[in-house]
Amino acid sequence: MQDVFLYDTTLRDGNQDRKISLSLADKLQVAKLLDTFGFDYIEGGWPNPSNPTDVEFFKRIGEMQLNHAKVAAFGSTRRPKILAENDPLLQALVASGAPVKTIFGKSWDLHVTDVIRTTLEENLDMIESSIRFLQEHSEEVIYDAEHFFDGYKANPQYALETIKAATLGGADFIVLCDTNGGTMPWELQGIFEEVKKVTDVPLGIHAHNDSGVGVANSLVAVKSSAQMIQGVLNGYGERCGNADLTTIAADLVLKLQKNVYCGKNLKELRKVSLALDQIVNLPSDVHSPYVGDAAFAHKGGAHIDGVMKVSRSFEHVDPKLVGNNRVFVTSDQAGGSLVVEKIKELLHIEVDKKDPKVQNLLRLIKERENAGWHFDSAEASFEMLVYRTLGRFESPFSVENYRVIEDRSEQGVSVSQASVKLRVKDEISHQVAEGDGPVNALDAALRKALVPYYPYMKNVHLKDFKVRVLGSNVGSDAHVRVWSTFGDENGVWHVAGVSTNIIEASWFALVDGLSYKLYQESLKGSGK
Amino acid sequence: MQDVFLYDTTLRDGNQDRKISLSLADKLQVAKLLDTFGFDYIEGGWPNPSNPTDVEFFKRIGEMQLNHAKVAAFGSTRRPKILAENDPLLQALVASGAPVKTIFGKSWDLHVTDVIRTTLEENLDMIESSIRFLQEHSEEVIYDAEHFFDGYKANPQYALETIKAATLGGADFIVLCDTNGGTMPWELQGIFEEVKKVTDVPLGIHAHNDSGVGVANSLVAVKSSAQMIQGVLNGYGERCGNADLTTIAADLVLKLQKNVYCGKNLKELRKVSLALDQIVNLPSDVHSPYVGDAAFAHKGGAHIDGVMKVSRSFEHVDPKLVGNNRVFVTSDQAGGSLVVEKIKELLHIEVDKKDPKVQNLLRLIKERENAGWHFDSAEASFEMLVYRTLGRFESPFSVENYRVIEDRSEQGVSVSQASVKLRVKDEISHQVAEGDGPVNALDAALRKALVPYYPYMKNVHLKDFKVRVLGSNVGSDAHVRVWSTFGDENGVWHVAGVSTNIIEASWFALVDGLSYKLYQESLKGSGK
Repeated sequence: MQDVFLYDTTLRDGNQDRKISLSLADKLQVAKLLDTFGFDYIEGGWPNPSNPTDVEFFKRIGEMQLNHAKVAAFGSTRRPKILAENDPLLQALVASGAPVKTIFGKSWDLHVTDVIRTTLEENLDMIESSIRFLQEHSEEVIYDAEHFFDGYKANPQYALETIKAATLGGADFIVLCDTNGGTMPWELQGIFEEVKKVTDVPLGIHAHNDSGVGVANSLVAVKSSAQMIQGVLNGYGERCGNADLTTIAADLVLKLQKNVYCGKNLKELRKVSLALDQIVNLPSDVHSPYVGDAAFAHKGGAHIDGVMKVSRSFEHVDPKLVGNNRVFVTSDQAGGSLVVEKIKELLHIEVDKKDPKVQNLLRLIKERENAGWHFDSAEASFEMLVYRTLGRFESPFSVENYRVIEDRSEQGVSVSQASVKLRVKDEISHQVAEGDGPVNALDAALRKALVPYYPYMKNVHLKDFKVRVLGSNVGSDAHVRVWSTFGDENGVWHVAGVSTNIIEASWFALVDGLSYKLYQESLKGSGK
Repeated sequence: MQDVFLYDTTLRDGNQDRKISLSLADKLQVAKLLDTFGFDYIEGGWPNPSNPTDVEFFKRIGEMQLNHAKVAAFGSTRRPKILAENDPLLQALVASGAPVKTIFGKSWDLHVTDVIRTTLEENLDMIESSIRFLQEHSEEVIYDAEHFFDGYKANPQYALETIKAATLGGADFIVLCDTNGGTMPWELQGIFEEVKKVTDVPLGIHAHNDSGVGVANSLVAVKSSAQMIQGVLNGYGERCGNADLTTIAADLVLKLQKNVYCGKNLKELRKVSLALDQIVNLPSDVHSPYVGDAAFAHKGGAHIDGVMKVSRSFEHVDPKLVGNNRVFVTSDQAGGSLVVEKIKELLHIEVDKKDPKVQNLLRLIKERENAGWHFDSAEASFEMLVYRTLGRFESPFSVENYRVIEDRSEQGVSVSQASVKLRVKDEISHQVAEGDGPVNALDAALRKALVPYYPYMKNVHLKDFKVRVLGSNVGSDAHVRVWSTFGDENGVWHVAGVSTNIIEASWFALVDGLSYKLYQESLKGSGK
């Protein structure tokens, strides 16, 4: 028996995030991701005539086979002064065919009188009759008590009346919502106790992060007997976001020892979190609890020393449990010995810190770190620097020159053309190519110059490309850092390039990205 | 009398953040910022011979006049088996001249025996004697009980012994540290109760965010009588970061009604938060509670409607209290009426949604939003689109063509050259310029072509420049969004450009940025 049900509303409340705008294809992809991970409910959206994407979503998701998750359609209680069965929005909910319907209703007297402008009596009937109507057409009906905590604080008696109405209507879950995100954990706890006195329906929590306590409120609710948590994977959502279901899932399993369905997939947590960021096209939060790149990254010398001696001494959980890894940050502050450790690991050889070649390498690493290369997110560039400086890799090509020409005609048509002249295997390879923009043209020309000599280069693709301006002295003449991901059928690797010139920075990254592949292939040749 | 003292450790624990590396100048600037805002303690670093930056910091800060904050130097208890006065690290703490010394000691038996490898007895004496020695050379000594909660859970009796040792040594504050960030709010509350039974020294809390409850733990500690909160502005720090003092400051004042010194400056909270991000050179978190760009941004139609009727109905606090603003997001989802509202506000005229020109404008806005322009962060580009489409602005120049040539010679020297041909006031202005990179060259050439006609353009500067790759179909041929900040003596404005070609996207942004200035000047001419 599950202790707590996880209800994800990425597709509805998450989509209210200022930075997110999901297409139908995105929504279906996210739904599949959430189901595969093992969330219990997936709220798909608010199907109604003014929202054709969501109407279509429910049609399409109904035709798909999900592993475990129940699909919920979201809406509100009926309008004042009509019968529930005559309310077009409730009819649209029924028409969605979703097995679960979740509707919100008003708990706060101010909202009843001043926002939806009806009587307190009528609102109670709206709650009860809407739930009862939906129950006739659903497997399950969930009642979201909007602004419950604010409502309770303003008028406790009325707020509890709305809970009784939802109970009479036949709700399967009553979810107390901290809609504005302003409630403190200790307030929430006390209010849960009061609600339990007036209903036997299982309770849930829907928290927002406006006071920075969205996760804590969700967990405290569970301690106060809540059996459902509504939230959003990675904590996206309007304003400061919804309670972060990524963190909550890990906390429930690892800290509260709760039985949740997705618990068996917890090792996939980081992968699922990164996949969502990829679909919504937002950078992942490196600091995100459990799943962020930095979540188990140690930088302080004393901490690194401590973790090496006894890992649990400086780690609250084993990173492997959530699919993450321990990282020792390669920064100039971490000192030379850590870098030497990394070099040993890469080359499987003993390295002497006093060797002049190693000294030179350490100096170069520090210089580039200071210039903004950030090797900890560009491992392949770090490796190439090591291999080149220690004489482990002789590039099989050298660059004679390159040129990029970017034209915009009077008709407003832009054309990018790049030529690249390389010396490869004692021959000159001089190639020209056009592209969508200068980097694409350079990439195409560079590949065109290399493929005749290294046919496997055809399968290497530039998969991601990001540019950041460095330094506080910003402007178009500041240093820029280009970061790219390359990949082929065997995996992906990350490189960086830094220059005041964006084309040059891109060029460094392109050369590192392709050289890394050449190095990997050279190892095969040498049987390493 | 203050209820709670705020102790900021941005300069020490915050600087352990994977993405942060503060120079001496940065540190002094941050210290001034923290002091001006009204934090009570500023932890400056760990002064010792292997950390010359921090040694210098304490020298320099000692010569500065601060408004209110006390400066604290950080270190650890003495090493095993020597006298406190002979410990070189404690001597370095004294030599720093900082009025407050904060030292951490071991609370967890595992750490005593397996990490610092001494006896449980000796550790108690290390705590007591180190504090006593520092008291002779300080105005105040704060004891940080490292890993206190983990230590208490492993061996409560020993953990409490360490508190008694710190009490005997004469600590002014004993701060219970959740060093690994793994403690839940309810556990923390119970442990505070036990500690209060063995000491009368005022207690504090030092929380990390590894379980997503760093803020909640800090607040719960205050409810459990803690009188000091250690944290980091904006929540930077190793792994998942320290407890976020930005959120905590606002919660203490607005939710717990606590008397804190910085409370009188709460209206500066957003400004201070943004200023720190600028110094550490990291993008601000739009979702950050209270201070983020999105913290009071409403997107959902029902919410916007509600806020317009009764603002507190959908806002937990008034944004003005923390120096933030309510925002209605200009997204395609928010619908046409919101856009019409914005246009009315800009032009101070009635706009008819059914006017074909307006219809065309709404279509263009939606198209560009979908293409990734994100007008809510590029107001000047939004305005230029409105002015152009509604015939409010006739650009005084047109572009005949431009060309950028980017060369890298055999010697590895990169040269960027741009030529721009404009038609201005019925003349041809054809100019060429070199620059550090193609965008800088284009910017220079465009300005060179405009300045003879509009001398005030000389004072307009490109202040920030960012590039993001859009769409899930990433690679060097994907759409890129260029976002820039322009400014002159009168203020700053933001523009965006989107294209598959990074040069073209930059060009759109440059043209919008300069056109915005031309428009502003044209208003002056017309007396508007």
